Amino acid sequence: MHIGFIGLGLMGRPMALRLERAGHTLHLWARRQESLAPFADAQATGRARFHATPAEVARHAEVVITMLAAAPDVEGICFGADGLASGAAPGLVVVDMSTIGPQAARQIGLGLAEHNIGFIDAPVSGGEVGAINATLSIMAGGTPGHFEKVRPLFEKMGQSITLVGSCGAGQVAKACNQILAGVTTLAVAEALNLARQSGVDPARVREALLGGFAYSRILENHGRRMLERDFKPGFKAWMQQKDLRLVMEEAHCLGLMLPATAAAAQMFNAAVGHGLGAEDAIAVLKLLEGSASPVQRKDAA
Amino acid sequence: MHIGFIGLGLMGRPMALRLERAGHTLHLWARRQESLAPFADAQATGRARFHATPAEVARHAEVVITMLAAAPDVEGICFGADGLASGAAPGLVVVDMSTIGPQAARQIGLGLAEHNIGFIDAPVSGGEVGAINATLSIMAGGTPGHFEKVRPLFEKMGQSITLVGSCGAGQVAKACNQILAGVTTLAVAEALNLARQSGVDPARVREALLGGFAYSRILENHGRRMLERDFKPGFKAWMQQKDLRLVMEEAHCLGLMLPATAAAAQMFNAAVGHGLGAEDAIAVLKLLEGSASPVQRKDAA
Repeated sequence: MHIGFIGLGLMGRPMALRLERAGHTLHLWARRQESLAPFADAQATGRARFHATPAEVARHAEVVITMLAAAPDVEGICFGADGLASGAAPGLVVVDMSTIGPQAARQIGLGLAEHNIGFIDAPVSGGEVGAINATLSIMAGGTPGHFEKVRPLFEKMGQSITLVGSCGAGQVAKACNQILAGVTTLAVAEALNLARQSGVDPARVREALLGGFAYSRILENHGRRMLERDFKPGFKAWMQQKDLRLVMEEAHCLGLMLPATAAAAQMFNAAVGHGLGAEDAIAVLKLLEGSASPVQRKDAA
Repeated sequence: MHIGFIGLGLMGRPMALRLERAGHTLHLWARRQESLAPFADAQATGRARFHATPAEVARHAEVVITMLAAAPDVEGICFGADGLASGAAPGLVVVDMSTIGPQAARQIGLGLAEHNIGFIDAPVSGGEVGAINATLSIMAGGTPGHFEKVRPLFEKMGQSITLVGSCGAGQVAKACNQILAGVTTLAVAEALNLARQSGVDPARVREALLGGFAYSRILENHGRRMLERDFKPGFKAWMQQKDLRLVMEEAHCLGLMLPATAAAAQMFNAAVGHGLGAEDAIAVLKLLEGSASPVQRKDAA
C-alpha cells in the first residue's frame, strides 16, 4: 500500500520503519530534512519517496499517518497551506496517532470530512520501546469501514488494537489510559517511598504486593525501575504532564471531578518545575523523597 | 497444633475454619457468644474448645491469632484484665492479622516482648472472598524464627505469604497495599466515568486498556463490577476509609507527602458521608457521577 507518514520523531520513525519492512511504500515529508535520513536506504530501493509538501504526500497515498506533538501541529498538516486537505486523492484516509485530546480530534475529523477525507484518531500507549518492538496499544475512533482499511497497518505497529467507538473515542480511551498511568505511577511512588521512610525494604514490599490484588503492570515495571533508581526515559515526565493537562482540560469542558488525576497532574507540573521533565515519569518519586533540585524558574534561567 | 483464635467476624471466622479443617485444635474466646455458633460441630468433636477469657486461650495455645477491627481491640485482648499476656504459656507467639497500622503493631510487639511473648504482625489483603477461599495475601513482620513457626498456618489461610521485615513491617506493607488499592480504585472510577460522560462505551475503553501498560487487577475486577453496577461488598467503603486514615496518620507522623492517597482518603470520607459506607469501595464511582445521595449528617439522624 502507498502510505504517507508525517512526524518521524522518537515514536513515528520506528513505526514508519515497521511499515516499510512489511513491504509498504512510504511517502514522506518532514519539516526538518534530517528526519528523513533513516529512510535513505528505503529511498534508494524505491520503498520510500520524499515529497516537498504534505499535499504532495496526500496526492500519492491511500492512507496518511500523522504522529505529532500537539493538536496545532496536526491541524497545520491537515489544513495549512499545502496541507493534506489540499492534495488529497479520492478515498484518502488520514490516521492521526498523536495524543491531542478528544475535542481536537473531533474538530479535525469534521474538517477532513468536508473535504471527503476519512479520519481515524488512533493514539497509542507503550512508548518508544513499544514503537520499536511493534507492541503498542492502539486505541482507535472512527467508522468501522475506515478502521478495517487501516487495521492491517495497525497490526504491523501494535499488539492490542481496539476500535473503541466513533471519531474522538480513541483520544478518550487514551485519556483514560493516561489517568491510570499517571495516577498509578504516583501511587506506586507514594507506596514505595512510605515503605523506605518507615525503615522497611521497599523491594520486599513490592514483592509482597505483586502477588495480590494490588498487582499492576506499573507496580511491576515502574516499581522495579524506582527501586533500581533507573530514571532514564522511557516516557518522559514532561509528556506525562502534557497528557494530564489534556485530561484536565477535558474534565473542565465536561464539568467532571477527577480528584486523583488532579493530584497527579499537579505532581507532574512540579516534576517539570524541578527540572525532572526530561527524566522518566517515575522521577516523580524524587519529589516525594525531597531529593529533587529546587524549583527552576523559567525567568531565572 | 493448639491455636488460639480471637476475632471471629467476617474475616476471622472463615480463616479459623480453614485451620480447624487442616487438623488443628482451636481455642476460642469471643465477646459475643453467637460468634462461636459456627464452631459448635468442631466443639462436639473436640477440635474447638471455648474459653472464658483470652488469658485462658493463651494458657492452652502455642499460637494465638487475633483478627480484630482496630488497635485498641488488639491492645485490650493482649494487655487488658484476663488478657493474653496474663495467661501466656512459655513460648507463646501472638499473630495479629488485623489492620492496625505500624506504630500500634510495634507498641504491641514491645509490650508482648516484656512478657516473653513472641509477636508477628500479619495483616492480609483479599477480603472476605480471599478468607473463604484461603487465597489471602499475608504480609508479615517479625523475627524469622517466629515467622517460620507460624508459616504453616499462614499457608492454610493464604496464597501469597511474605516476611517483609521486622516488627511492624507487615503493617507497613499493608499500608502500601491500601495506597495502591484505594488510589487505583479511584483512578479506575475516574477513567470509566470520563469515558461514559464523553459518550464513549466504558466497557470498550476498559477492554482496550486491559491489553496495555495500564493493566491492573483492579481495572480488571473492580472495573468490571463498576460497569455491571455491582456495588455489593466485597470490601466496604468504610473499611477503605478506615485503612486510608491509618495511612494518612502514618504519613503525618513521618512527615511524608502522599498527594494521590490524600485525594483518595477524601473521596472515601465523602463516600461514607453520602451513605455509601456499607457498599463496596467501588461505590466511590457514584460520587464522581453525582448519583450518590446527599450528605447524611450524623447530627441530623
